Amino acid sequence: MDEFDLIHRITPKKSHQNALVMGIGDDASVYQPHSQCEEVVCVDTMVERVHFRFDFSTPYEIGFKALAVNISDIAAMGATPKYYLVSIAIPPHGDEEIVTALYQGMKALADTYQMDLIGGDTVSTRSDFVITVTVIGEIPKGTACYRQSAQTGDIVFVTGELGSSAAGLSLLMNGVAPVKSVDTAFFLERHKMPQPHVVAGQICSSFPRVTLNDVSDGLASELNEIAEASDVTVEIEADKLPVHADLPLLNDKWLEWVLFGGEDFVLTGTIPEADWTSFEKQCKEKEVKVTQIGQVVHDQYAGVNLKENDQQTKLMKRGYNHFKK
Amino acid sequence: MDEFDLIHRITPKKSHQNALVMGIGDDASVYQPHSQCEEVVCVDTMVERVHFRFDFSTPYEIGFKALAVNISDIAAMGATPKYYLVSIAIPPHGDEEIVTALYQGMKALADTYQMDLIGGDTVSTRSDFVITVTVIGEIPKGTACYRQSAQTGDIVFVTGELGSSAAGLSLLMNGVAPVKSVDTAFFLERHKMPQPHVVAGQICSSFPRVTLNDVSDGLASELNEIAEASDVTVEIEADKLPVHADLPLLNDKWLEWVLFGGEDFVLTGTIPEADWTSFEKQCKEKEVKVTQIGQVVHDQYAGVNLKENDQQTKLMKRGYNHFKK
Repeated sequence: MDEFDLIHRITPKKSHQNALVMGIGDDASVYQPHSQCEEVVCVDTMVERVHFRFDFSTPYEIGFKALAVNISDIAAMGATPKYYLVSIAIPPHGDEEIVTALYQGMKALADTYQMDLIGGDTVSTRSDFVITVTVIGEIPKGTACYRQSAQTGDIVFVTGELGSSAAGLSLLMNGVAPVKSVDTAFFLERHKMPQPHVVAGQICSSFPRVTLNDVSDGLASELNEIAEASDVTVEIEADKLPVHADLPLLNDKWLEWVLFGGEDFVLTGTIPEADWTSFEKQCKEKEVKVTQIGQVVHDQYAGVNLKENDQQTKLMKRGYNHFKK
Repeated sequence: MDEFDLIHRITPKKSHQNALVMGIGDDASVYQPHSQCEEVVCVDTMVERVHFRFDFSTPYEIGFKALAVNISDIAAMGATPKYYLVSIAIPPHGDEEIVTALYQGMKALADTYQMDLIGGDTVSTRSDFVITVTVIGEIPKGTACYRQSAQTGDIVFVTGELGSSAAGLSLLMNGVAPVKSVDTAFFLERHKMPQPHVVAGQICSSFPRVTLNDVSDGLASELNEIAEASDVTVEIEADKLPVHADLPLLNDKWLEWVLFGGEDFVLTGTIPEADWTSFEKQCKEKEVKVTQIGQVVHDQYAGVNLKENDQQTKLMKRGYNHFKK
């Protein structure tokens, strides 16, 4: 692989952000931050055979997802993604075609958000691809959505639908769906090319007291993080959890996908009850699906409770607590 | 390895930067950019057995260098490093002790510059460590030092000394020094724990028209980049190149280390002749060693010429062009 040729191929020919002063091509990139904003930064790494497999996803899809998971973290702060940097460690089986497609997948998603690629590194490794993406976003001062401000009485919500990504992964691992009429392509795409919920996050940040997480590790884990950081107890109701109509057809244990599957990259959080109607209205206007799934039930962290058929179960970060109340 | 325990260990207990609004512990970190500054960002990856070896360097030294090479890129813009994010892919032979020491090496250097660790990821990989560091710096608006503003008559300079890192690497590869009196520890340390030239870069950015590169790929490569970007021709003189007094004792081909060795992480660039005296004075006040090594000799890029004993040689990015003028 000719490194100079590769860098030439992947270097953007034009930029979206007017605030970009110097893009790729010097020792570092330079941009002018928005004077009324704070900067929001995160980094995430995906490793071949740990986080993705070339027999499950195309290089384009893998690139798309590597950027998507980072944009999702920016969305979970309520911020707007602006710039990204990509570092790829390339093993011997990684030819130029694969690497170019990885960057194309990222660029496709980046263009949706007018994001600019402003840096990176391509290095060799001996065994597996390692893809590290850094994303920088901006948010109006003081409006970022953290985890620690939930209070008793707040409504617990989720954007979009849950469990679809885990269903897609299960279909990839186990082959065809048990029911012919199910549109498996939908679930596969949710797993392979998840869409970060940036607009939903922006709506959240326009309200004064919203807690927010993106559902990367599973709903139970994310809500436990919020409950713990806010020192409150959260209660959610199984029959309110939004899922695709076909999800229950795929597996009897679909509720496990919903609660613990993760990688849906929707947003979950809390908002004061007084703001709920206005929040719902704004979501509707921006075509963001939002669902009330529960409530903050009392002060002090005692986990996340699931109500299902008049039974209460305590949801741990990674599974049920089988010592039921 | 317990990931939560590890994250707890490496998460900073306090921060240096008052502008940090939210450090590690949410989906992303948030900071308030300086209102009179631009943001400067870069990322670099080091791979085990490609960029470093555990039989040559301790984990502490490897961590130190992984951050140093990125700070050096920030220094090469004239900027001040503020924040860093670290992503580590950990192979089966990477135990908690190694990983903790990697972070300690980074923290030691970061503390020197009052930098805060504001994000990261730790993931598994099957074969070699892959360490990716993102650094964010700031610089007063419009004062960054790029590569394209060199003009005929400008003085070509270098900070610090050249060739020491390559000498250190050679000592590591080939064992003991040929001359007993030579302080090999000095050269080994220059290779294993290079010091980025942040203060030198800051002085450069206080002048209106300085071009600047850090010497990562070798002096010839860096000056060719500046000459090409500025569309000028540069001439340097062999007997002006600053080296440690013992360097010539180590190898007859020490000039190759100086010109092509790289990894010295000193700065090289150009400055108008009219500013030279003032520049030298400021460097002296801040205890920065700076040396004039040549001049920009004419418009249009025709490479970098080396004058040595009345002979002229054209320096290519990676070696001599043996078709001498």
